[in-house]
Amino acid sequence: MMSKIPWQERPKGCTDVVWRYTKNPIIKRDAIPTSNSIFNSAVTPFKDGYAGVFRCDNKAVQMNIFAGFSKDGIHWDIDHEPIHFKEGNTKMISSDYKYDPRVVFIEDRYWITWCNGYHGPTIGVGYTYDFSEFFQCENAFLPFNRNGVLFPQKIDGKYAMLSRPSDNGHTPFGDIYISYSPDMKYWGEHRCVLKVTPFMDSAWQCTKIGAGPIPILTDEGWLMFYHGVINTCNGFRYSMGAAILDQDHPDQVKYRTRPYLLSPQTLYECVGDVPNVVFPCAALHSKKEDKVVIYYGAADTVVGMAFGRLSEIIAFTKENSI
Amino acid sequence: MMSKIPWQERPKGCTDVVWRYTKNPIIKRDAIPTSNSIFNSAVTPFKDGYAGVFRCDNKAVQMNIFAGFSKDGIHWDIDHEPIHFKEGNTKMISSDYKYDPRVVFIEDRYWITWCNGYHGPTIGVGYTYDFSEFFQCENAFLPFNRNGVLFPQKIDGKYAMLSRPSDNGHTPFGDIYISYSPDMKYWGEHRCVLKVTPFMDSAWQCTKIGAGPIPILTDEGWLMFYHGVINTCNGFRYSMGAAILDQDHPDQVKYRTRPYLLSPQTLYECVGDVPNVVFPCAALHSKKEDKVVIYYGAADTVVGMAFGRLSEIIAFTKENSI
Amino acid sequence: MMSKIPWQERPKGCTDVVWRYTKNPIIKRDAIPTSNSIFNSAVTPFKDGYAGVFRCDNKAVQMNIFAGFSKDGIHWDIDHEPIHFKEGNTKMISSDYKYDPRVVFIEDRYWITWCNGYHGPTIGVGYTYDFSEFFQCENAFLPFNRNGVLFPQKIDGKYAMLSRPSDNGHTPFGDIYISYSPDMKYWGEHRCVLKVTPFMDSAWQCTKIGAGPIPILTDEGWLMFYHGVINTCNGFRYSMGAAILDQDHPDQVKYRTRPYLLSPQTLYECVGDVPNVVFPCAALHSKKEDKVVIYYGAADTVVGMAFGRLSEIIAFTKENSI
Amino acid sequence: MMSKIPWQERPKGCTDVVWRYTKNPIIKRDAIPTSNSIFNSAVTPFKDGYAGVFRCDNKAVQMNIFAGFSKDGIHWDIDHEPIHFKEGNTKMISSDYKYDPRVVFIEDRYWITWCNGYHGPTIGVGYTYDFSEFFQCENAFLPFNRNGVLFPQKIDGKYAMLSRPSDNGHTPFGDIYISYSPDMKYWGEHRCVLKVTPFMDSAWQCTKIGAGPIPILTDEGWLMFYHGVINTCNGFRYSMGAAILDQDHPDQVKYRTRPYLLSPQTLYECVGDVPNVVFPCAALHSKKEDKVVIYYGAADTVVGMAFGRLSEIIAFTKENSI
Amino acid sequence: MMSKIPWQERPKGCTDVVWRYTKNPIIKRDAIPTSNSIFNSAVTPFKDGYAGVFRCDNKAVQMNIFAGFSKDGIHWDIDHEPIHFKEGNTKMISSDYKYDPRVVFIEDRYWITWCNGYHGPTIGVGYTYDFSEFFQCENAFLPFNRNGVLFPQKIDGKYAMLSRPSDNGHTPFGDIYISYSPDMKYWGEHRCVLKVTPFMDSAWQCTKIGAGPIPILTDEGWLMFYHGVINTCNGFRYSMGAAILDQDHPDQVKYRTRPYLLSPQTLYECVGDVPNVVFPCAALHSKKEDKVVIYYGAADTVVGMAFGRLSEIIAFTKENSI
Amino acid sequence: MMSKIPWQERPKGCTDVVWRYTKNPIIKRDAIPTSNSIFNSAVTPFKDGYAGVFRCDNKAVQMNIFAGFSKDGIHWDIDHEPIHFKEGNTKMISSDYKYDPRVVFIEDRYWITWCNGYHGPTIGVGYTYDFSEFFQCENAFLPFNRNGVLFPQKIDGKYAMLSRPSDNGHTPFGDIYISYSPDMKYWGEHRCVLKVTPFMDSAWQCTKIGAGPIPILTDEGWLMFYHGVINTCNGFRYSMGAAILDQDHPDQVKYRTRPYLLSPQTLYECVGDVPNVVFPCAALHSKKEDKVVIYYGAADTVVGMAFGRLSEIIAFTKENSI
Repeated sequence: MMSKIPWQERPKGCTDVVWRYTKNPIIKRDAIPTSNSIFNSAVTPFKDGYAGVFRCDNKAVQMNIFAGFSKDGIHWDIDHEPIHFKEGNTKMISSDYKYDPRVVFIEDRYWITWCNGYHGPTIGVGYTYDFSEFFQCENAFLPFNRNGVLFPQKIDGKYAMLSRPSDNGHTPFGDIYISYSPDMKYWGEHRCVLKVTPFMDSAWQCTKIGAGPIPILTDEGWLMFYHGVINTCNGFRYSMGAAILDQDHPDQVKYRTRPYLLSPQTLYECVGDVPNVVFPCAALHSKKEDKVVIYYGAADTVVGMAFGRLSEIIAFTKENSI
Repeated sequence: MMSKIPWQERPKGCTDVVWRYTKNPIIKRDAIPTSNSIFNSAVTPFKDGYAGVFRCDNKAVQMNIFAGFSKDGIHWDIDHEPIHFKEGNTKMISSDYKYDPRVVFIEDRYWITWCNGYHGPTIGVGYTYDFSEFFQCENAFLPFNRNGVLFPQKIDGKYAMLSRPSDNGHTPFGDIYISYSPDMKYWGEHRCVLKVTPFMDSAWQCTKIGAGPIPILTDEGWLMFYHGVINTCNGFRYSMGAAILDQDHPDQVKYRTRPYLLSPQTLYECVGDVPNVVFPCAALHSKKEDKVVIYYGAADTVVGMAFGRLSEIIAFTKENSI
Repeated sequence: MMSKIPWQERPKGCTDVVWRYTKNPIIKRDAIPTSNSIFNSAVTPFKDGYAGVFRCDNKAVQMNIFAGFSKDGIHWDIDHEPIHFKEGNTKMISSDYKYDPRVVFIEDRYWITWCNGYHGPTIGVGYTYDFSEFFQCENAFLPFNRNGVLFPQKIDGKYAMLSRPSDNGHTPFGDIYISYSPDMKYWGEHRCVLKVTPFMDSAWQCTKIGAGPIPILTDEGWLMFYHGVINTCNGFRYSMGAAILDQDHPDQVKYRTRPYLLSPQTLYECVGDVPNVVFPCAALHSKKEDKVVIYYGAADTVVGMAFGRLSEIIAFTKENSI
Repeated sequence: MMSKIPWQERPKGCTDVVWRYTKNPIIKRDAIPTSNSIFNSAVTPFKDGYAGVFRCDNKAVQMNIFAGFSKDGIHWDIDHEPIHFKEGNTKMISSDYKYDPRVVFIEDRYWITWCNGYHGPTIGVGYTYDFSEFFQCENAFLPFNRNGVLFPQKIDGKYAMLSRPSDNGHTPFGDIYISYSPDMKYWGEHRCVLKVTPFMDSAWQCTKIGAGPIPILTDEGWLMFYHGVINTCNGFRYSMGAAILDQDHPDQVKYRTRPYLLSPQTLYECVGDVPNVVFPCAALHSKKEDKVVIYYGAADTVVGMAFGRLSEIIAFTKENSI
Repeated sequence: MMSKIPWQERPKGCTDVVWRYTKNPIIKRDAIPTSNSIFNSAVTPFKDGYAGVFRCDNKAVQMNIFAGFSKDGIHWDIDHEPIHFKEGNTKMISSDYKYDPRVVFIEDRYWITWCNGYHGPTIGVGYTYDFSEFFQCENAFLPFNRNGVLFPQKIDGKYAMLSRPSDNGHTPFGDIYISYSPDMKYWGEHRCVLKVTPFMDSAWQCTKIGAGPIPILTDEGWLMFYHGVINTCNGFRYSMGAAILDQDHPDQVKYRTRPYLLSPQTLYECVGDVPNVVFPCAALHSKKEDKVVIYYGAADTVVGMAFGRLSEIIAFTKENSI
Repeated sequence: MMSKIPWQERPKGCTDVVWRYTKNPIIKRDAIPTSNSIFNSAVTPFKDGYAGVFRCDNKAVQMNIFAGFSKDGIHWDIDHEPIHFKEGNTKMISSDYKYDPRVVFIEDRYWITWCNGYHGPTIGVGYTYDFSEFFQCENAFLPFNRNGVLFPQKIDGKYAMLSRPSDNGHTPFGDIYISYSPDMKYWGEHRCVLKVTPFMDSAWQCTKIGAGPIPILTDEGWLMFYHGVINTCNGFRYSMGAAILDQDHPDQVKYRTRPYLLSPQTLYECVGDVPNVVFPCAALHSKKEDKVVIYYGAADTVVGMAFGRLSEIIAFTKENSI
């Protein structure tokens, strides 16, 4: 039986289409003994509760990913040791670092993607059946790439992945592409999906953008939350928006929010290791209940939750599309 | 009859020449439904109260200017639609964006200047008689320019405008110039007024500077508040100082504060979309009452007020001049 | 009586629309005792021969402009002292440096424009009746500007000037604008004329562009030669192209060469103080003879000449327009 | 019957392992009417002579690739129109630009790779049977990539390609990778092959490197010529070295030259559109005669040839390996 | 009699090896009338209490150092005038600015080092017997250098100083060196001590590092606290670590913390003139009581204290060494 | 008996104060078998001829210094192996690289200084009695430093050295300092000597400067040749000027040439591994004959000679002083 997704109704007087959990942050920076910060993390329904993959930077500021479990999606037990991968479809499973994971169930297993350090950042791929034993596969792409996000089902018989090719530094540019694979090993048919916007059209997403949670299939197409970045005179500010992609041809963008849905405004989003960051990596949803909860990293330091109604978000995206 | 300007006495124990309003910010980031942030805005006496022109960035972080009205100068009603301009002395009234307005009454109408997007930032010019119908004129200058501030009366029979020519990016340099016009259409006689200071003389204003509110004519000359910027290892920090310019030849600087008058120190000035910004754009004053209230943008997010005695500010500027 | 313009027929086998003088460079770097280099210079018919204004950098690499005279337009006597200006329509005639002059006769006098150092580069303006006594006027614009080029006659009753606003460094960007003045003192009605091209359309002019010689009025409109710059991995390369502007509305571009007309290919253009520079600043033409000779700086070191047929250049520009 | 490869014996007194053709450049910048420059080009045996694919930048400095033919490998007839591609294994055959081609015969056809403009540089792939009809395939990789070079035979049943992922600018960094494909459409198994060297070990290849001609299978393994770049205070300098890769596992480097084999020293290599560039893209060899001739772009302007003995180059690479 | 060092026990539930004083900051930004900020300052036992040298930037953001005194090491009286230096072993005692002082007693006097502005930052040296009369000596090194920290006793008969040579800007790199002097005037025998770490080993110290308080001699060697910097996409973040240097050969590093000991996490460390800075400059310790108190600048705005047990810190450094 | 210094009279018609040897370059890039380039080198009278220390970069572009000998100062035999140093006043004689040597005889031996790679560039020091056996001493300074040049005699009983502290990259800034040592081991009393000039005063030396040959004691003081650099839009251009320093207080500059004495103008100075470089490192002189010959590196590729009359150079420096 499916577990109940975390939920809190919209506060009175609030007219925002997406609103924050009042008890944010749900995961604090020191939730495990070694952690300097826990943020940009992924969750998925698992058994009668939830499982997740968490980015925990340790106090040497080394980046790795950790498994975690929760009954209610709010209170989490995170392993104290990082995930250990065995060989999946390759023997080449080295990683200089791992960060910003995503998780999705496809057909028979849970697939995990993350930013994998292999001569620079690229897209790491792995899977598990039980969140106990993990297998690492071929990196999907050449460096330099980040924010690899799988679709939750095959499209035209092939796996499909969003990613954000860019450079190997602090990345002052980057658009979202889609690529396909018949076998989770060889990738091709690369197409540009979503580009940064002109500064004047929508400045919060004019510097770089990257896919966030696993896209959600709706009647309108794929609902994709993503982060957008503006380069201010005091550094990058990360906000969140949404786009709707064609169901069968997801390189075709049907709608895309001109305004952001969520931007750094609270103290835990504005003050931390990297100020002014809202970075979504996962979402749970119930179409029946018309609910979605988005998990996002805040200030590269902690994890927060935000809520919304699927129908309202879709309507908002259509009405406020560029 | 002239309205009473907003006022709050200096707090006990405070020795600063300029002090903050205790209920800051007076305008919050979400004061109108579409706004992401409201800051760097201008006010002027109007009828039996006040009118203003407000920079409201929307949730797409598009920049535009909006009219607003207030009885007391503290509580403001801001229009929900941006100002719509009709053709003034030109048919070329396109604007890629508008931000950082100033307002001043000269002779028979209220003139508005702002940073206008026309192949890059330059100085937009417009006017209104009633804050209801607005007319846009020729841009004053070629790009790339910002912080155009008119004097409140003609000087030697000509309109006079301060501005800060620089580049089309995040502007790592910039000094204040003055220019003249016989007709608000053609501009010339450009003169340098105030340059950045050497780092060792006064570091808070060593990177770039720009005029703030409309200059105030005093017995000592034109009192000009301005912002100054220092480039720290974590980005730009914006503070406020004052200068006194010769009444008849305002390109001649008589005095200029070595220390700042106000720098980012409160949470609403240090935390926001752009941390550590104090950016004055308007001031109301009463010579009779020896009062001035300065309106300033804080952290590129909200509007605050600060108070001072004209006589004390002038004395301070003279005594602490570089 | 008009003097004969310098001329050399197209070499056999050459199919280029513009070809070089075989005895280039016509002015060597040490043509006057103090000069390190003589380049980017302007000439005009004068009396029964020619006069010119020459950029001569001295051996301290200080930049100034010098008058010179020639009977045939090829052999030049350049004054050993720089031009001394008297006060024209202003008392403010200071110059930190002067470089890259242009010269044009309008109505009753010869107007000279140049890049004038006044708190950074801007457009200096002066005039002479006789190339013996010179008068300096108000700078046309605020800094930061270069390549100010006047039209040879008023347009709609006003003086018209092309210029290239940009920044105060080595200028990694810049487009051509037009501005108007009723009186050579106050300038306005700024319009964008010609922008850099997308890299893929015409890469030699994709980084920055600037007007060159005085535009030539033809049956098709104003023929404007200009320089375009590409940023290679070994620095900037300057080439020359042509555009045709509408006669009455010169901010309207009718045609513009996709290919360059001349690029650095000879040893004196590729080797020198700044390698790979072809920089046109003047042209003499005879419509009757269907001839034009272009004077250009080569490698920021010497002056060269290139020839062409007006009719062929116009046809080429139309046929190869972007 | 195989044609005789171009050859010239080592000059007397010369002790270099690679020496230049005395009649260089063999292809001048204006070898076809529209060309600004012809360089970085590829050749291959074809019928009783040779065919090639040439990078010809036109006078708008637009980059495209052209077919050409030669009886002797020295004198070339290059088509005046760029290659027109039909749809190969994809309908998405757009190209913003094409440059730096390589050509290789595998199994039944000639494969061509080049730097293909698709939202930035990436690796374009095409094929021909006859150098008359050409077919374009899926791009091999996501942007941003350059210098895609195929191996001349399948390795472990798969196509193998070297490439140099990097950024979308002038590319201040870059190493050589290898990737595999079962079908020339989907690519994976990306491995790092060769990295830049520490400045102190071998400075000419310390900034970035990229594969050059098609690798040559020798008894020692794959002989790969490549270019290396040093960032001097006057820009990039491109030289050529060699490496030997393991035959079956070409991501394993057996030897690599510490010294360069060829660096810019002649006038046609040091002076041109981009000074100081030696950029090899093709080689013809005869194992029986122990000869190799390398075709290289010089100064981004012309094509030169250099000769060597295979046995000597291999011995030199082994003896001077890092 | 030695005064009691300031102390506060580790909070309940806290497992950190270093913990903050609960009443931080102990010195606020406006502790003297002219100060904009007071941070990065040094203290030392003096008479029956403590003396210190404080970095107080004034409201013109000019940097200078001031003497101060305290009975308990927590409550400080700071002079309102900066330290006035007389001539020590040189007549050349000019300073464009002074900042980031350290203080240490050696043999017969208190030595002070600081970052001294002499054609750029270098290491200023001075001494006092009584914190009333001060003498300035020769700068220890040529520019460009910062964070000069003396050892508290001669080593092998010579004075020994740590420093961090780098450039004259915001310093994107820097390692710790040691130098020796027979006479506090001439310096030599420069050796590299501690370098930044690879990003993947310990990212908080991967950009630049600099010595903090005077090293403390322990049974394991010299205990050196130092700051380390990571370059985030929103600027530099400064944290604190520890290293243990060989007693007789302090250029030999025995241990060094992979994790930080203290990083910016509180509001007064994360919000201020320069966000996210923890910068230690002094420490008091009692071996008998096994206590150390570290004084550190927070956010370039205020001074804080942190406590630890010497034995625990040494054990932690050994157990968590890179 | 002193050998005759190389000499060639001023060419007819030449009015330059310094003129080139007509047979330049005297040392070609391939003068020894392993060399890629030989430039920036030092010579000194030795026995009945001359000895020298030469910068020879090998074909891996590794930098090292080599001894060489000549009868006439023009034709040189350079050793094929780099100088091997034994331990002088230190055991720490490691060098990552060595380049840009200077040589001078003081009291009883020949001292050599060079740019020594020790965690970045700093000043290496060594000596020899016979140019056969060499001894390496302590580095004079901390990194980052270049162009260390000793005075040929003690000043006030101490060794004196000029140097140019800067950063560890391509060094966009740098002034000349002087430092003193009682023992060639410990250095102090650092003073600024000569700074770059404002662009408008003398642009060829406005970016960075560095001492060249050993200073020559004249009746006017120390004659110091130095290089100056301008940052053009195509990279750095290196020229040569002269200054005269006070004999007893060489940090006091008496005169300094506003114009350059020599700038890159010939093909071997303008074309090579680094175009547009004239870099003097040594000079031989005869006061009796009123002659000086300057050895300089050209284009970072070869060595050239230039001649002058001491009396004329001194007069020129005085008459053309800034």
